Amino acid sequence: MEPTASLSASTFPSLAFAAVLFIVSVVVGYGLGRKLPTVDRLVVVWLVYDALTHFILEGAFVYYSMVATVQTSNGFLTDLWKEYSRADARWGESDPTIVSLEILTVIVDGLLAVVLIHAILAKKHYRHYVQVVLCVCEIYGGWMTFCPEWLTGSPNLDTSNALFLWVYLVFFNGIWVVIPGALMWQSWVSLRDQHTKLEGRVKGKRK
Amino acid sequence: MEPTASLSASTFPSLAFAAVLFIVSVVVGYGLGRKLPTVDRLVVVWLVYDALTHFILEGAFVYYSMVATVQTSNGFLTDLWKEYSRADARWGESDPTIVSLEILTVIVDGLLAVVLIHAILAKKHYRHYVQVVLCVCEIYGGWMTFCPEWLTGSPNLDTSNALFLWVYLVFFNGIWVVIPGALMWQSWVSLRDQHTKLEGRVKGKRK
Repeated sequence: MEPTASLSASTFPSLAFAAVLFIVSVVVGYGLGRKLPTVDRLVVVWLVYDALTHFILEGAFVYYSMVATVQTSNGFLTDLWKEYSRADARWGESDPTIVSLEILTVIVDGLLAVVLIHAILAKKHYRHYVQVVLCVCEIYGGWMTFCPEWLTGSPNLDTSNALFLWVYLVFFNGIWVVIPGALMWQSWVSLRDQHTKLEGRVKGKRK
Repeated sequence: MEPTASLSASTFPSLAFAAVLFIVSVVVGYGLGRKLPTVDRLVVVWLVYDALTHFILEGAFVYYSMVATVQTSNGFLTDLWKEYSRADARWGESDPTIVSLEILTVIVDGLLAVVLIHAILAKKHYRHYVQVVLCVCEIYGGWMTFCPEWLTGSPNLDTSNALFLWVYLVFFNGIWVVIPGALMWQSWVSLRDQHTKLEGRVKGKRK
């Protein structure tokens, strides 16, 4: 199927909104993290995007899905979710599994992202603890989004065109696995080094 | 309703099997952890129980649920799950959300529990990292087990008697939230202390 066959009146406004969220995150995150090393400055940019996405985009999804369904509601953010639900119909129909993981994502992951931004900027001891918890939640959420669908033969997924498959499904879900995965690696290295330094100190004292 | 109204021929064998798993865990875990402080010795006992439950009990559940369903399969461990599914019918019917989270629980949580036992015994740097990841997965699994059901008015839960409500649903699910929660607190304290010691060392050097 031609990729353009999948375009709707909401395609560009929805992608533009995601892009605006990202640009806002770059400006805010880069400003907040101006005293940080480059990698952590980029982490803060991501976390601002993370918090904005969870609170605004997914917050709206949870609200509309609990009051009624995305498909039966109206408004700009419902248009965005209606657009996305063309690739995964469950997002339009208040699927209980999707709504459950999104409730947790909005409340827990959203708050953890804010706490983590503070922890990075203020160099708090719990920075990597919170980072690991947040990233595990996001990766677990990715698994729970797709595994139930795969087990039932993916009746709700439309992968017939490049926009739905590669942009909506792979890209917009993949970033919530790949980037949390990279952050988990950063935390692993950091906590390992912290432990190694402390062991060196203990051994040094024993000599 | 009288609690005894809920007893079946599988009630006592099922509870006895859970008790045997626990006793084996106490013996194995207490033996493995004989050189550890009391708290970590108890943690190892729990982790042996954790691994045995994930691999044997939940492993059997995943196997039967993917080949057919628990309700249509036969064998001792299907009797145990048929018994449990009297309190939560989804476990008898290969509910895709339950099977999805159980696949992750068996493979990821089961392996993490084994790695964590090794990390505790061998005093590895990644002990608390793995502990946090495992515990977040288990608590997230608890949320995903019940939230979709609550959102739809709990059509699959039978809470009409004390055995189903307090033993099967509250106790056998609650331990997977309360104990991981306690372990997350232990990791928080340990990583905070590790960070504080290191900060003291760095500040000491700067003087």
